Amino acid sequence: MQRVDEADLAALLAPLAWERQGSELVKVVRRQDFAGALAYVNDVARLAERAGHHPDVDIRWNTVTLRLSTHSLGGITDADLELAGQIDALTG
Amino acid sequence: MQRVDEADLAALLAPLAWERQGSELVKVVRRQDFAGALAYVNDVARLAERAGHHPDVDIRWNTVTLRLSTHSLGGITDADLELAGQIDALTG
Repeated sequence: MQRVDEADLAALLAPLAWERQGSELVKVVRRQDFAGALAYVNDVARLAERAGHHPDVDIRWNTVTLRLSTHSLGGITDADLELAGQIDALTG
Repeated sequence: MQRVDEADLAALLAPLAWERQGSELVKVVRRQDFAGALAYVNDVARLAERAGHHPDVDIRWNTVTLRLSTHSLGGITDADLELAGQIDALTG
């Protein structure tokens, strides 16, 4: 796992539906209701378990906020970007 | 659904494993890992769906934070206390 160089980050983020906030990548997804939000979280969790890398997850009724960061390396890594792309593929 | 009188709240909270923080009830639960945390959230969600009342849920790897409040009534209601008790029963 490697921290991404600041100079490369903007280009790597361009194809992703995540917003950078400081040392985190953030994605907000809305579903029809709480059950839909939870189903989405369970889908994300399957990818996270496979990657051995886990986003922070907040559920507010129908709205899920995901935050990806590699705390041990103090920033955004290739592992974050890879999982971010896999999660984007979930939501189409 | 009714807001609980401030005068009654301490006694009603005494048997519950929730902490009051302002207009919310807060419960923090740790599991062995992310999968355990998510399994717990799915158990909580089943109770929430049955109650038609949903806590805010935060997952940080193995740690789940639940927040119960009735935003439409601006505080803690009988519905919050009832669901809090049901969730306590889950965790034994």
